[in-house]
Amino acid sequence: MQASPPKRDSAKKEMLVRIGVAVFTEKGFHNTPIDELVAQAGVPKGSFAYYFGNKDAYTLTVIQSYAEYFNKKLDRCLGNEALGPIDRIKAFADEATAGMERFAFRRGCLVGNLGQELGALDETFRTALLSALVGWQTRIEACLEEAKKAGELAPEADAAALAKLFWYAWEGAVLGAKLEKSRAPLDGVSAAFIGHLRSLAPIRRG
Amino acid sequence: MQASPPKRDSAKKEMLVRIGVAVFTEKGFHNTPIDELVAQAGVPKGSFAYYFGNKDAYTLTVIQSYAEYFNKKLDRCLGNEALGPIDRIKAFADEATAGMERFAFRRGCLVGNLGQELGALDETFRTALLSALVGWQTRIEACLEEAKKAGELAPEADAAALAKLFWYAWEGAVLGAKLEKSRAPLDGVSAAFIGHLRSLAPIRRG
Repeated sequence: MQASPPKRDSAKKEMLVRIGVAVFTEKGFHNTPIDELVAQAGVPKGSFAYYFGNKDAYTLTVIQSYAEYFNKKLDRCLGNEALGPIDRIKAFADEATAGMERFAFRRGCLVGNLGQELGALDETFRTALLSALVGWQTRIEACLEEAKKAGELAPEADAAALAKLFWYAWEGAVLGAKLEKSRAPLDGVSAAFIGHLRSLAPIRRG
Repeated sequence: MQASPPKRDSAKKEMLVRIGVAVFTEKGFHNTPIDELVAQAGVPKGSFAYYFGNKDAYTLTVIQSYAEYFNKKLDRCLGNEALGPIDRIKAFADEATAGMERFAFRRGCLVGNLGQELGALDETFRTALLSALVGWQTRIEACLEEAKKAGELAPEADAAALAKLFWYAWEGAVLGAKLEKSRAPLDGVSAAFIGHLRSLAPIRRG
């Protein structure tokens, strides 16, 4: 039986994962040698091999960690009952936009970056990236179902299709923010999506 | 004075550019060594240097060629007066979707791929990619202005903002098609955008 690694080791592992998110969203996968990751973390190369085995396994850990980070952010924003369901989606978009602004729009979304770079090359990566996106879509879809119950959205609106539309438009806007070095694409897509939802409000009768 | 290169040389140059579009949209920039490009083209490495100087200059030529290719496709689709202006946008989206389907959704959009990979790293690439996108946006915007004149779109609709929305949603859908290996994200975004335009039709009076 192997003892669990000492606490400072698990801190090193977490740091390597955090560095991976930062570097991959800015520079992508193929442009990032392991040497650069371990240099930034200030750990010997052997540690990288010890924690992750190889770069592919490491990247899968980074993708899962990123997916979870946004799952938690979504759960928090979309679970905020002080706001109506549609306003919760807007609050999430505003928070995600502030996150990109903090890094001067140099960092994109890991799913967008690695999806473009690796999606067609490797089935394991494609599946992991798609499942991250599906996890986020499911959360928006559930919030749209709540919007129906709250009378904000017509019962016949297709919540699953709208949730997918939100994420694909969002991923495109993240690319736009990177290219324009501006929050304008994110604000534009957010406003258009929320406006579209408002146009799908139930028709008031009587 | 230097003589212009013989015809078969310019054909080789064009072939290298075509190969660049195919390879970059599937595998990205950093994952594609020059050796692979010249091997696919069946030309000696010296030819690559002779035509383009280096990989960065080559990539700029590939971006410009790709921008022009879609400019021409847009001019043809959006200039088709047999259709109403909004239906012309739909026809363009259908044609672009068929293009992705032909390559089993392995190839994305060059602007999306290289924008994610290089947009934050290099100002020259960022500017070239953004200007490709602006060229396409301008064409959709002009078509939306035609839609206003044809009475399909309310005069107060913001054609420039709608054109940007179309392209960012489209770029996200291209990523989605790559991840899902399916045309569903493209069809979903196209239908949502056209539906959104229809909801912005002028209010009929009288």
